[in-house]
Amino acid sequence: MEMDVISLPSSRIHPENSPYVHKVCMPPKQKFIQEFTGMAKELFFPDDPLRDFRGQPRSRKIILGLQSVFPILQWGRDYNLTKFKGDLMAGLTIASLCIPEDIGNAKLANLSPQYGLYSSFVPPLIYACMGSSRDIAIGPVSVVSILMGNLLQDEFDPLKNKADYQRLAFTATFFAGITQAALGFLRLGFLIDFLSHAAIVGFMGGAAISIGLQQLKGFLGIKNFTKKTDIVSVMHSVWGSVHHGWNWQTILIGASFLAFLLFAKYVGKKNKKLFWVPAIAPLISIILSTFLVYITRADKKGVKIVNHIKKGINPSSVNEIYFSGKDLGKGIKIGVVAGVIALTEAIAIGRTFASMKDYQVDGNKEMLAMGMMNVVGSMTSCYVATGSFSRSAVNKMAGCQTAVSNIVMSSVVLLTLEFITPLFKYTPNATLAAIIIDAVLGLIDIEAALVIWKIDKFDFVACMGAFFGVVFASVEIGLLIAVCLSLAKVLLQVTRPRTAILGNIPRSTVYRNVQQYPEATKVPGILVVRVDSAIYFSNSNYVRERILRWLTDEEEQLKAKDQPIIKFLIIEMSPVTDIDTSGIHALEELHRSLQKRGVQLGIANPGSVVIEKLHTSKFTELIGDDLIFLTVADAVMTCAPKMVEA
Amino acid sequence: MEMDVISLPSSRIHPENSPYVHKVCMPPKQKFIQEFTGMAKELFFPDDPLRDFRGQPRSRKIILGLQSVFPILQWGRDYNLTKFKGDLMAGLTIASLCIPEDIGNAKLANLSPQYGLYSSFVPPLIYACMGSSRDIAIGPVSVVSILMGNLLQDEFDPLKNKADYQRLAFTATFFAGITQAALGFLRLGFLIDFLSHAAIVGFMGGAAISIGLQQLKGFLGIKNFTKKTDIVSVMHSVWGSVHHGWNWQTILIGASFLAFLLFAKYVGKKNKKLFWVPAIAPLISIILSTFLVYITRADKKGVKIVNHIKKGINPSSVNEIYFSGKDLGKGIKIGVVAGVIALTEAIAIGRTFASMKDYQVDGNKEMLAMGMMNVVGSMTSCYVATGSFSRSAVNKMAGCQTAVSNIVMSSVVLLTLEFITPLFKYTPNATLAAIIIDAVLGLIDIEAALVIWKIDKFDFVACMGAFFGVVFASVEIGLLIAVCLSLAKVLLQVTRPRTAILGNIPRSTVYRNVQQYPEATKVPGILVVRVDSAIYFSNSNYVRERILRWLTDEEEQLKAKDQPIIKFLIIEMSPVTDIDTSGIHALEELHRSLQKRGVQLGIANPGSVVIEKLHTSKFTELIGDDLIFLTVADAVMTCAPKMVEA
Repeated sequence: MEMDVISLPSSRIHPENSPYVHKVCMPPKQKFIQEFTGMAKELFFPDDPLRDFRGQPRSRKIILGLQSVFPILQWGRDYNLTKFKGDLMAGLTIASLCIPEDIGNAKLANLSPQYGLYSSFVPPLIYACMGSSRDIAIGPVSVVSILMGNLLQDEFDPLKNKADYQRLAFTATFFAGITQAALGFLRLGFLIDFLSHAAIVGFMGGAAISIGLQQLKGFLGIKNFTKKTDIVSVMHSVWGSVHHGWNWQTILIGASFLAFLLFAKYVGKKNKKLFWVPAIAPLISIILSTFLVYITRADKKGVKIVNHIKKGINPSSVNEIYFSGKDLGKGIKIGVVAGVIALTEAIAIGRTFASMKDYQVDGNKEMLAMGMMNVVGSMTSCYVATGSFSRSAVNKMAGCQTAVSNIVMSSVVLLTLEFITPLFKYTPNATLAAIIIDAVLGLIDIEAALVIWKIDKFDFVACMGAFFGVVFASVEIGLLIAVCLSLAKVLLQVTRPRTAILGNIPRSTVYRNVQQYPEATKVPGILVVRVDSAIYFSNSNYVRERILRWLTDEEEQLKAKDQPIIKFLIIEMSPVTDIDTSGIHALEELHRSLQKRGVQLGIANPGSVVIEKLHTSKFTELIGDDLIFLTVADAVMTCAPKMVEA
Repeated sequence: MEMDVISLPSSRIHPENSPYVHKVCMPPKQKFIQEFTGMAKELFFPDDPLRDFRGQPRSRKIILGLQSVFPILQWGRDYNLTKFKGDLMAGLTIASLCIPEDIGNAKLANLSPQYGLYSSFVPPLIYACMGSSRDIAIGPVSVVSILMGNLLQDEFDPLKNKADYQRLAFTATFFAGITQAALGFLRLGFLIDFLSHAAIVGFMGGAAISIGLQQLKGFLGIKNFTKKTDIVSVMHSVWGSVHHGWNWQTILIGASFLAFLLFAKYVGKKNKKLFWVPAIAPLISIILSTFLVYITRADKKGVKIVNHIKKGINPSSVNEIYFSGKDLGKGIKIGVVAGVIALTEAIAIGRTFASMKDYQVDGNKEMLAMGMMNVVGSMTSCYVATGSFSRSAVNKMAGCQTAVSNIVMSSVVLLTLEFITPLFKYTPNATLAAIIIDAVLGLIDIEAALVIWKIDKFDFVACMGAFFGVVFASVEIGLLIAVCLSLAKVLLQVTRPRTAILGNIPRSTVYRNVQQYPEATKVPGILVVRVDSAIYFSNSNYVRERILRWLTDEEEQLKAKDQPIIKFLIIEMSPVTDIDTSGIHALEELHRSLQKRGVQLGIANPGSVVIEKLHTSKFTELIGDDLIFLTVADAVMTCAPKMVEA
């Protein structure tokens, strides 16, 4: 008997089956406070951080607490020599990569070269103790450097106002750290999820282009170069100085070493075993070019060189930070922006590598670590440091096991600062430019853009918006565009949700979109409509009107084929995850207009939240409990016989 | 045989049934351009406005076109005497109501009384020709008046700078009209849907309070009254002037007539037939109080009176509008805000009454009509007019049939302007204050607020935010809060979507949330999870982590009861209306981590959009087509036997 109920193709059902129809249950009543705490928990503690603490003795809890703040206490205990071998190799490799990059990045941020190195010394140490990612390599990165460069030089001139500029840089770094730590501590990590993958791809690509363009200064040896980063003004000052101001020796050096670097990269791509070739290529080119310039004294012929790099480790910069005055505000503004961008990049990297090796990185914990390292950094003459795409990849390929590779790197940087910085005196800027150009090429991810285009057109728009925003306006504008477009997409989806007519899949009680399943057949006299979104104020009127339009269209078709007219309209509610007061009003109005047209409104499979609200709002009484069904099949089963009677 | 397939409780299925499992279909491939146009159509033309035009001869099309711009051409043709009787009665009733209200509203906007009357003369005529609502009554309304009053007096002092103030008012009105017309013409009507019902309830309530507070000036006869509208500063200036400046005669008049009005309203409520009592009460009180003051010469005793109202109909104000200069910008800013608010109120009213009498109002067409009437208005000395809640209600109760009632009203206003304005000279402001207070009481909808609280707590927060924003800060702030909270809610829902574990409902192939349906039983070794939202960048990581958490929790429980461990994880995708690149990445990562834990990932009932994207992104190949099912039942049916084997 029961078997019949379910097995009968729903189009020919006998009334006596109705008793077997399942009823929609009300969820267990929740108090407002429960509801609220539940929501808050999912919002702020989705990862259930206190899971391990439960039912542990006090002493254990303290240890666990320390371990959760300093993961090194956890993985440090089973650290061994084999792991260290891997970390040592990896550390040395990324060190050789980071030293030249740091000097170049410092230039992007309009800071003297040593600050780049400083920022690769202290922050990695802090991160090694507090971070939860094993593969991420910490240091200043080009995107954040150019972003800070832009924002800072709007406030102070980096040449005329060197001191103020630096102070503001440290202030911004401090507040970048505070922002990151705060986001992590307040469990607001989810906020950075609002930068969509597509937006980041576009943003990174754009940033890479504008960073590359900035390098033309050092690459062509142009003296008076624009401060702007948009392609138009850069190209303008490049062509403006084509006759005077380009320096052929510089170009020669830059071009040849760029060629060398690209070749090294090619080798590394060809043979994964030789990954270290592109990794140490930058250092080699630094050494070669420095030596070259030293013997040829090309600097006399107008080849710009690094000149003096201050020797010795990070001086304290605590009392350089603005904690008051009008510059405090500027510092906070810049810090927040730079901090969030740095965070986005770091978290993206952390997640990528974590999922490769299948371990979890705790977003909020990461933010706390990043924040702390930048706060400490800002007091030791560092500017904003974060995880670098290129270096982290090298780090992984070089076989890093834990964050110890960061410690190795920073000790190498320490030695460099202490002893060999003077040797960089004759390093030509052109080589640094070549190194940066080579590095940022990796940020342009055309495959990703293509995939995005294939999969989701709107994502692609967001991606391109961010890209062109950065290239033609500025890094900040591009960022703004990216966020706005990302949000617009979400809002669009809840403003114009999809709706579909459902039909019965032959030999089943399943009802599916007739457009997706051509074999699905509509039930005579019963129109089944599915609404593909929560029904909110932003779409309630649309949903109401759209459903009525489906009905009208359907009735016209039926008239044409003079088939039985529609007597029941069933709304399949499975995708309707939530409803608000506006939504319920819309349903009530829909019910009213349907009654005027002699059509009965029915509802199939309302979720727990929805049925509860429909109940409290008395909507269930309005249409009658017997018109609320567990499944579309049940609905048809109940309504079909009434059709026959009618 | 088939019957077995479907009827067997899914927990005991035999492998040989598998062949009967239905496959998920790919939707018919769409070109990007089709997709895009389809989306654009739903966004901008959900009502399919050209439906009637199709397949009509050119001549007919022209007529239809004219009719769609001027609906009067349509309903005018079958207009008859019976209808006119209704409209005449209604028109006269709302006229008697609007005249005193207009004078009061003009005061709220810091304009001389006649401008209120002007605005009830021209705009209703325009609307009658272009509007599609039959019940709405057009004229200046208190909320928009106070909003304009606030915004305008921030720019110019209404007393010292009368001329500039008026010019700016007309400019704002002009651009309010342009904004409204543009929104309608560009089919952007859906934008005003972003003000949720809850937000509007709160906003209106707050506005009513602050309008009421403003009336204390006239009601108590206070001379130097604050310009601010927030409760704190108003109360301050009320108590500040308690010893000197309150005028007992004024209070006596105000209080007695307020009592009269409230009594009239009470009578109207008690007996619906006597609806005209509260409708004409204001006019009666005007006449009585005016007469009273005239004979007692109370104005000599400090009772403020209206004094001179300019006689004659609207003068032209074309050349008073700022079309250039710095005031143009101010005008545009104020106009946009006032226009949108006016629109929100009007559309809300139009929809309410339309759904009562079951006819459609075309939102975009309404906006065009409102826009035109305000543009013309701004050139004939009117300020922003829109549909009024109170008057429209009276209009309907008085039995209006068409927009002709508006024409009747405006002709009465015309006569008033031409002949009887001088008689208002002795009308005491206290009576006007009483009338406005009585009018705005209707805007405070406590029942609605309670319903919102019952149904949706977050909606209630938005409602209260708007309310307190208006009462304690200002109308604009309240509005801003309302919009932000409304959007925050939508974003929250896509940031932390609900997820649920599904179980099999006994004697069916139906799977439902085990929390909502206690009798639903989980299938041993198979975990069925439902995700209640589109999977987007904003929630992809959360969804991934949440699903893994479900799995972990489940496995812990199973271990405790040493039951078979989970071998399959099925994601029920029915509510997943869309997925983007971030979402697909999340699924891929989920698949990877599951494999590491020896769990197979399966997907049930992906929608057309989703399956298409999963296919193009090769995700289907990654997990295998045989693990993508039409229903959860099918999935269980296929996986259960494999459990047995395992």
